[in-house]
Amino acid sequence: MRAHNFGAGPCALPLDVLEEVAAELTDFGGTGMSVIELSHRSKDYEAVHMGTLETLRRVAAVPDAFDILFIQGGATMQFAMVPINLLAPTQQAGVVVAGSWGKKALSDGSKHGDLVAAWVGAERGYTTMPRVDEVGVDPDWSYLHVTTNETIGGIRMVDLPETDVHLVADMSSDYLSRPIEWDRYDLVYGGVQKNLAPAGMAVVFVRKSVAANPANDVANYLRYDFHAASSSLGNTPPMFPIYVMGKVLERLEERGGVAALEERSAAKAGAVYEVIDGSDGFYRSPVDPAVRSHMNVVFRLPTEELEAEFVATAADRNLIGLKGHRSVGGCRASLYAALEMESVDVLVAFMEDFRTSH
Amino acid sequence: MRAHNFGAGPCALPLDVLEEVAAELTDFGGTGMSVIELSHRSKDYEAVHMGTLETLRRVAAVPDAFDILFIQGGATMQFAMVPINLLAPTQQAGVVVAGSWGKKALSDGSKHGDLVAAWVGAERGYTTMPRVDEVGVDPDWSYLHVTTNETIGGIRMVDLPETDVHLVADMSSDYLSRPIEWDRYDLVYGGVQKNLAPAGMAVVFVRKSVAANPANDVANYLRYDFHAASSSLGNTPPMFPIYVMGKVLERLEERGGVAALEERSAAKAGAVYEVIDGSDGFYRSPVDPAVRSHMNVVFRLPTEELEAEFVATAADRNLIGLKGHRSVGGCRASLYAALEMESVDVLVAFMEDFRTSH
Repeated sequence: MRAHNFGAGPCALPLDVLEEVAAELTDFGGTGMSVIELSHRSKDYEAVHMGTLETLRRVAAVPDAFDILFIQGGATMQFAMVPINLLAPTQQAGVVVAGSWGKKALSDGSKHGDLVAAWVGAERGYTTMPRVDEVGVDPDWSYLHVTTNETIGGIRMVDLPETDVHLVADMSSDYLSRPIEWDRYDLVYGGVQKNLAPAGMAVVFVRKSVAANPANDVANYLRYDFHAASSSLGNTPPMFPIYVMGKVLERLEERGGVAALEERSAAKAGAVYEVIDGSDGFYRSPVDPAVRSHMNVVFRLPTEELEAEFVATAADRNLIGLKGHRSVGGCRASLYAALEMESVDVLVAFMEDFRTSH
Repeated sequence: MRAHNFGAGPCALPLDVLEEVAAELTDFGGTGMSVIELSHRSKDYEAVHMGTLETLRRVAAVPDAFDILFIQGGATMQFAMVPINLLAPTQQAGVVVAGSWGKKALSDGSKHGDLVAAWVGAERGYTTMPRVDEVGVDPDWSYLHVTTNETIGGIRMVDLPETDVHLVADMSSDYLSRPIEWDRYDLVYGGVQKNLAPAGMAVVFVRKSVAANPANDVANYLRYDFHAASSSLGNTPPMFPIYVMGKVLERLEERGGVAALEERSAAKAGAVYEVIDGSDGFYRSPVDPAVRSHMNVVFRLPTEELEAEFVATAADRNLIGLKGHRSVGGCRASLYAALEMESVDVLVAFMEDFRTSH
């Protein structure tokens, strides 16, 4: 039986995509080879690769001014590559620290450039995002880094900070779940393993003028211009995630694209928050209601014992991955793109049931 | 019909592995999820991950003194990470440049440390490896970098240079096709996409004492100690190649491990070289006979027109990937681990046939 996968990532992929991948895994398009056995220089693979790039450009409405890059190492790798490529030794940039991912972007990135915290949510327990006028931005900064969704805290940046400084965003955990305001950004990145594909790379959207002028002279793999010049074929690319992502994006497009995913995400999250808010305090959301995440619904029960029982009982009913992050405890329902409303309905019914029986 | 895949990489994987992967792609071990949908923190994935690490340690006879790391970005990423981690600003290291991969290790690595060419094969057209006493090594060097097999030239390093300086090796294109002399190395790395797994990562074997003392202070993803401390689970790992590699390694072990693969590789290459040498000059190997590669058999025909006809006719007979690298022309038969002797038999018969009819 198919699990209801509420894991925080890697996470569910569309079942029909998995079935299609399985069906063609030993013979891709009559080549007599698996797609993962093709030469990355072959016409067959090139069609897959360029197809994924084109679909992504269309689905995310990526302007011509941006390159689309597939780079291995996930967001963690980008914590290094962003300052290496965008921040010269004489320059400074800011980072909004609204949770654990912002913290990592700051600490990792600081090894490769002069980064300062532009706003820190620590005093409020990382339960909220900055107001749009609350981020202190130096107009000389090369960029301001934001994390649009913090998976552990369960909060999302609803509105971007008011500033003329160009933004860099880590969108790993809410990638393509809403339109991207391209004119505000120099660079957008994210690991693909939540909304888009199997783990194994980041998708990086970088303004071409920025990619073309690296701030530091480094080895090829660490340079955006290397990946841009070769359409991410400068070395052997992570073919499997690229291939699967192409199929996932086609499904996304068929179902109405980013706008429809935004609506579905709001509806899925809304259903869970409704149960929480209507539970007379049995379930409790610890975060600022104005910035509740549509991807990661974090909630508490009256006691840790009940939380453990909730997670275990849910698992018995095939509702998987509801335990909160070990650093904060509690419960968390992650509702990534491939998780269907039907699974949310099952969760919601279970939550009502569990409350009534406790 | 299954293709005979002589591509230079990515390349053939064992058919029974592909079939097993396809069969469990929508439901891994009764979890109701695909292996690529599992949380990388779940017990199910952890068993896969640790299993692959254990099998690899056993198959490659990796001593306890070495960590085994799975790092995204392939060998190209390691061209940066090796000097970043092993070469402090006050130190120098040497690189044997016996072909295009050695060239890249030198040029990319030079962005991150003081690297000098220890030996260069340019004058002889990159058709041979240095003799063991021919490499000029400064005893103060932090390491000497070698490429054990050059895929484009079609040559292999049969014997390691005579030196007390510890070696670093790029083994991407002949990984596990012969035993590794661990006491000679501080670090061994290679992309997995030729002998071991689908593209998407490098396997890095690094001496623990070396990993624990990084020569430069950089972001986590670029540090061997980060990956070592977390068994390569410090961020979301490339789960699919790790999972497939586990199965490939199990098959390799069942078939006699590295020693048997070394024999099979010598036999496969030997059969092709025998046709070349017995062809009265119709086929011609351009490389030093003493260092002919067992992985990439490079050969020429009397004219470029015949070479093109050879490649095209072979493709019609389902012999795929025989065109030489665009930088050198000619033909190349790559004989990676999963290519069976049966495919070599078909190639050999075709080569005889083609010669007789021309």
